[in-house]
Amino acid sequence: MSTLTTRAQDYSQWYNDLILKGGLADYSAVRGCMVIKPYGYGLWENMRDVLDKMFKDTGHQNAYFPLFVPKSLFEAEEKNAEGFAKECAIVTHYRLKTDPNNKGKLIVDPSAKLEEELIVRPTSEAIIWSTYKNWIQSYRDLPILINQWANVVRWEMRTRLFLRTAEFLWQEGHTAHATKQEAIEETERMLDVYATFAEEYMALPVIRGVKTPNERFAGAEETYCIEALMQDGKALQAGTSHFLGQNFAKAFDVKFSDKDNNLEHVWATSWGVSTRLIGALVMAHSDDQGLVMPPRIAPLQVVIVPIPVKDPAGKERIDNKALEIMNALKAQGISVKYDNDDTARPGWKFAEYELKGVPVRIALGLRDLDNNVVEVARRDTKEKTSIPLEGLTGRIENLLTDIQSNLYNRALAFRNENIVKAYTWEEFVAILDGKGGFVSAHWDGTPETEDKIKEMTKATIRCIPLNNPFEDGKCILTGAPSKQRVLFARAY
Amino acid sequence: MSTLTTRAQDYSQWYNDLILKGGLADYSAVRGCMVIKPYGYGLWENMRDVLDKMFKDTGHQNAYFPLFVPKSLFEAEEKNAEGFAKECAIVTHYRLKTDPNNKGKLIVDPSAKLEEELIVRPTSEAIIWSTYKNWIQSYRDLPILINQWANVVRWEMRTRLFLRTAEFLWQEGHTAHATKQEAIEETERMLDVYATFAEEYMALPVIRGVKTPNERFAGAEETYCIEALMQDGKALQAGTSHFLGQNFAKAFDVKFSDKDNNLEHVWATSWGVSTRLIGALVMAHSDDQGLVMPPRIAPLQVVIVPIPVKDPAGKERIDNKALEIMNALKAQGISVKYDNDDTARPGWKFAEYELKGVPVRIALGLRDLDNNVVEVARRDTKEKTSIPLEGLTGRIENLLTDIQSNLYNRALAFRNENIVKAYTWEEFVAILDGKGGFVSAHWDGTPETEDKIKEMTKATIRCIPLNNPFEDGKCILTGAPSKQRVLFARAY
Repeated sequence: MSTLTTRAQDYSQWYNDLILKGGLADYSAVRGCMVIKPYGYGLWENMRDVLDKMFKDTGHQNAYFPLFVPKSLFEAEEKNAEGFAKECAIVTHYRLKTDPNNKGKLIVDPSAKLEEELIVRPTSEAIIWSTYKNWIQSYRDLPILINQWANVVRWEMRTRLFLRTAEFLWQEGHTAHATKQEAIEETERMLDVYATFAEEYMALPVIRGVKTPNERFAGAEETYCIEALMQDGKALQAGTSHFLGQNFAKAFDVKFSDKDNNLEHVWATSWGVSTRLIGALVMAHSDDQGLVMPPRIAPLQVVIVPIPVKDPAGKERIDNKALEIMNALKAQGISVKYDNDDTARPGWKFAEYELKGVPVRIALGLRDLDNNVVEVARRDTKEKTSIPLEGLTGRIENLLTDIQSNLYNRALAFRNENIVKAYTWEEFVAILDGKGGFVSAHWDGTPETEDKIKEMTKATIRCIPLNNPFEDGKCILTGAPSKQRVLFARAY
Repeated sequence: MSTLTTRAQDYSQWYNDLILKGGLADYSAVRGCMVIKPYGYGLWENMRDVLDKMFKDTGHQNAYFPLFVPKSLFEAEEKNAEGFAKECAIVTHYRLKTDPNNKGKLIVDPSAKLEEELIVRPTSEAIIWSTYKNWIQSYRDLPILINQWANVVRWEMRTRLFLRTAEFLWQEGHTAHATKQEAIEETERMLDVYATFAEEYMALPVIRGVKTPNERFAGAEETYCIEALMQDGKALQAGTSHFLGQNFAKAFDVKFSDKDNNLEHVWATSWGVSTRLIGALVMAHSDDQGLVMPPRIAPLQVVIVPIPVKDPAGKERIDNKALEIMNALKAQGISVKYDNDDTARPGWKFAEYELKGVPVRIALGLRDLDNNVVEVARRDTKEKTSIPLEGLTGRIENLLTDIQSNLYNRALAFRNENIVKAYTWEEFVAILDGKGGFVSAHWDGTPETEDKIKEMTKATIRCIPLNNPFEDGKCILTGAPSKQRVLFARAY
């Protein structure tokens, strides 16, 4: 097995090594697009299944809208269009033809030019609200609570596996409501779903907040977000939930008649998380030996590795015990693999499953069996213990729970240690250039100051935390009066 | 509720009415693309979940490959490229800019032209085999058994909801093998999975066969298919499984070293089913009152409709009983809805759930409750029966099983009645122009005759059934000698 770059050597290369060597994804022949390999897709399936259930439990249904957005619809909501215009893939033709000058090659057929260009969706508000227009006449048609699992394309210039790719997979909820209050409640409810998912399943502590106007989703009145902290001290936006006001309803002329027969514009929300979450997961928990998967969403929770013996009877004893353990664990809904490939040595397998971040490894040798024990290694702390075969299943269940909470607590302690108040500009810069993390500082509330700080330090305002305490102070840059601190950080 | 077109009036309009009024899908603002509405998407989710489990049970894993195929990769396998070149959406630019002559409008930025055009995948062999090249060195890397759930785009000129849309959802399996034999076995195994799914879940009898060279997938050595019969006597290809030989391995130079260290090209298969299956489902089972959903994949299996009473105590009795029934059914894994919306009358609801094809309807009135019975209506035969409350859950379970097999048997009887042997050309044409269905006839085995027959009658050879008996005969058109009958039909 090739060596991994360590975090201390090169954090960014360490991250790429884990993704590629851990089998989560691969580069592709298409600029900025990646291939999600089976192990990475298995992780995404687990995340998707949990989220999907949470969406359905909060009253949403799935649907599917077209991949393409005609240009005239795309440009209807001006701010949204402006926000995405610079990074979208555009379909202009619908046919190839044989190249007359180059046998076996194809060229775009100039006679097959579309009358109207189609934008590959970077997000689906436009196509969805042009559809909702036909579905909404009266208050009885509301609310509409729809989610879509889909691929989207944003033509990013600098891409990174999972964190920023030209095409990515996500879900996007798009809801329509009769009142402003109801839409705001929905926006907040879905932020809460995301935060619960991140903390309870990904073991990823997040700060819930709202974005400043500068950092809002293009076309939103208010963007709520969850922000996480990575091990290198950079922040990562892990999910957003937007209150869209009546912007899209006005752009697409979507009105409903209320109970008193008045025509009103509809209120909207949208919210999404993407395969970017996998990048967050990797950077939050992994170490220099490889990935560390939180048990609740791990593609594989337990691996059993036999210690080889030459004697066939001994081998059979090990095989039988392994199958017995595997079946007992599976009966409890735990995913298990028995790796009895005898072309690889145990030591190689140990390193391989450490690299892949499998939470629990059970090693099964004859001497252990004679003593009615197995050797169990936990991935998070790399501790090994001898555990009696009797009651093993229950112990493994407890261990998985313990690993899950240990990962969360470890990430939480790290995050909390890395929210630091800055009182002067020098301090502010020193923290950012030092250990990084979230810097809690006063800001005068103007976009100009925010831009200036970004220009000078590359730090942005990640969010104004929800339930932020008010406190008189002076802007960290301008000294102008401020009523509250906000969280700055350099971010992915 | 607006009236449905009947099959006798206009079969094609009847089909569209069911899709639109039954809430499965809607037209969109994008030419040839549709919106899959929550009820239709719920059906697709059920189909997908069953198939996904069948794929995993046969050793496959899911992954995800890019939406775009660079033109140079697209054209690498010549036959495949030629087959799809005329119907593909092409991305040529990656940025829009403000229209200088038209405030608030956007135009394609001519300076953001891609160096190499990107094809929106009509199928993914090219992008996947260009990736497999990096994953395969030795026989130890084989087989690769991967499936992908994705959207694809084929720029069809004439589109129909679900049956033929420019964008559709599907799954595509792409496997790589060390031997020809193993690849052929995989191709046949997946055809079998499709046939089992169609028959056992969709209640759709299918004929398993192979395509003639004319009708093969572009780039395949052999295309296996399942063919179903619709109520109007037209056939529908419901799934295909392709043995690709070494065509893609050669096009992308994918070789592996075998146990003796010889370099060999890899053998390939691909196989897919799509949202088109929903169209097949609708046309196979539905009637003039609406959709008819097979219980095993119905988005909703049972609906409970209360018969309104004015007396609040009576209403409460009905509500309580309904919830009791609902919980008992849910505990058995049956999906149930209690429709207690009191703004709609029972008669309206009955018609609505008939239109949506919900397999079982339970009506709950006070007089019935006094007699310890409920009224149960089955959607397939529209029979109503009074059923005792005692043991109701078991009765409903049996009824769902019964409806499932009744739908299958009904479709099978219809299909079998509509496979007719033709002995003369006049007979052949008369059957096609009459009741339609599959015409079993001798064919001289030449593509020219096949083309001629298609030109004269619009009928194509749907398949050469597997295990087809040999029989000496003369081609239905040319009189040339033939060794077996094949199945002709007009088709969707």
